[in-house]
Amino acid sequence: MERMETALGFYAPIADGLRRVEESLEEVASGSEDPIKGLLEHVVAVRGKRVRPSITLLVSKVLDCDTDKPAIMGAAVELLHLATLIHDDTVDNADVRRGRATLSSLWGPEVAVLVGDYLFATSAIHVCNTENIRVIKGFSRTIMDLSSGQLTEHFMANQWQQTREQYYDRIFKKTGSLFATAAESGAILSGADERTIEAFRTFGSNLGTAFQVVDDILDFEGSAEEIGKPVGSDLASGVLTLPALLLVERYPRDNPVVAVCEGVEREANMELAVDMVRNSGVMADVYAEAGALRARAIDALAPLPDSEAKRALLELSDFVLERHV
Amino acid sequence: MERMETALGFYAPIADGLRRVEESLEEVASGSEDPIKGLLEHVVAVRGKRVRPSITLLVSKVLDCDTDKPAIMGAAVELLHLATLIHDDTVDNADVRRGRATLSSLWGPEVAVLVGDYLFATSAIHVCNTENIRVIKGFSRTIMDLSSGQLTEHFMANQWQQTREQYYDRIFKKTGSLFATAAESGAILSGADERTIEAFRTFGSNLGTAFQVVDDILDFEGSAEEIGKPVGSDLASGVLTLPALLLVERYPRDNPVVAVCEGVEREANMELAVDMVRNSGVMADVYAEAGALRARAIDALAPLPDSEAKRALLELSDFVLERHV
Repeated sequence: MERMETALGFYAPIADGLRRVEESLEEVASGSEDPIKGLLEHVVAVRGKRVRPSITLLVSKVLDCDTDKPAIMGAAVELLHLATLIHDDTVDNADVRRGRATLSSLWGPEVAVLVGDYLFATSAIHVCNTENIRVIKGFSRTIMDLSSGQLTEHFMANQWQQTREQYYDRIFKKTGSLFATAAESGAILSGADERTIEAFRTFGSNLGTAFQVVDDILDFEGSAEEIGKPVGSDLASGVLTLPALLLVERYPRDNPVVAVCEGVEREANMELAVDMVRNSGVMADVYAEAGALRARAIDALAPLPDSEAKRALLELSDFVLERHV
Repeated sequence: MERMETALGFYAPIADGLRRVEESLEEVASGSEDPIKGLLEHVVAVRGKRVRPSITLLVSKVLDCDTDKPAIMGAAVELLHLATLIHDDTVDNADVRRGRATLSSLWGPEVAVLVGDYLFATSAIHVCNTENIRVIKGFSRTIMDLSSGQLTEHFMANQWQQTREQYYDRIFKKTGSLFATAAESGAILSGADERTIEAFRTFGSNLGTAFQVVDDILDFEGSAEEIGKPVGSDLASGVLTLPALLLVERYPRDNPVVAVCEGVEREANMELAVDMVRNSGVMADVYAEAGALRARAIDALAPLPDSEAKRALLELSDFVLERHV
């Protein structure tokens, strides 16, 4: 798995930067005192795809930035992502993440909350090391978006009447916002002009939102082994994602999603809902929405000249849409 | 209660600044979207003593600072304090704080974790508005200290062999660090020289540590109604504070604190421990340590000329030591 990931083409132009990001993450663990050190080693040992720091690094590569600021920012972005994963797992009572036991399941929610806070702080320290107030402010705003996106998700549980707009607003906050910041800050730290900064923000925002839509597709389409949790677990826990909302839109009468939300024969209706989502035209519409978001992301880059880094960024966009799990 | 607090003398020279801090806190709630708005209104409605922002404001007053930066910083410091209270209550499963039901008990730990994160983010945004990178960095380092202090406390539960140094290191992190930052940043934002900045940092660090020692005294000395929890609840939950550690030092054989930590006849030994702490010479020693910390705090201010603001800062130091609950 890891081997396959490192072979992804979009890593090639940013190999140095990614190595520096990886070193920074390891240093966060090795530079901490016991007992935090051991806890962080557990967190950092789970190697993710590093999609968010890759975006920051590729944007800065497109813009020919030759400072180490984008690598510092890449580490900040990944640390923030790891912090939110820890709090999300705690909130969701999740036992496993990326094939490893979660902090929360191993050491209890108390420890997980505090280690998450500690990682928030280390991410803030990294972003401060960019010495760029605009980037630091954007980062703080993103932490706000991330938590308010999660909170809204929590409070809108089982509200099957919610609109597509509400869904998009929520997933922009909980996922798109960090992609937007990853891309935008790469441009700011490269000294880009306002129009270019805005273009990269649009790119990141749409790509991150597409990333979440694909996640929401996988929750219905993946096999239980692939996604490491039961199929349809979002709906089962009351979270209404695009596939479920489109199913309600298309079949407003006698809808199994509505029944699940209202607690009517939950088990039978869960099965029916998953089945209908998979086998109706709904899934094609959801894919089309994800594709449209990706297209909007890529369009934002149209004014930029062709380059190896730009092609890598397009490849990363394909990867986000085509990934399984 | 509230009336008594606002009558405290040290508020007088900083009334304007405190009003601005209060407005900022209310704006955090009123400026948020539902459902977060309602949650934050609950948090902000609990009016604390605002000791930490008072320190930032008084330091800047001593140094004749006439910008609004200290008030912005005061809000940041209080927001961070409120965020940590929410996470602490969640970690401790506390039902009541300052006479009101905790977020965690009302809306569940999931919501409390996320609202805490949201408040961390708003505090970060406020500190960014000081536009001072040094202050922002110090603030991030403080969030790290706060969470690592709490984590260490968690992992050192029931370790009655721990040293006084370990205790002080831990309480500096969990309490002293934010007082130190409150004082230091007041000086930095007032454009003070390095020696003065360092003096205020020493002041804040020692005062905050004394504040925590007094807290730890109250846990043994206060009545259950006064402190809103059972007497000796720190020890009961495995947290070894200075009174308990000094009792172990003084009576190394057949010590009830050791028995509680080792789970031997817990209830009877808890009662015995509380009784011994209250009625032996141990408490006098703990008061002496708190007094020494306060003296060190005040000594740091000796080189500064007398002024109304300086006298107010000394009064605040007395208040910290003499407060009940």
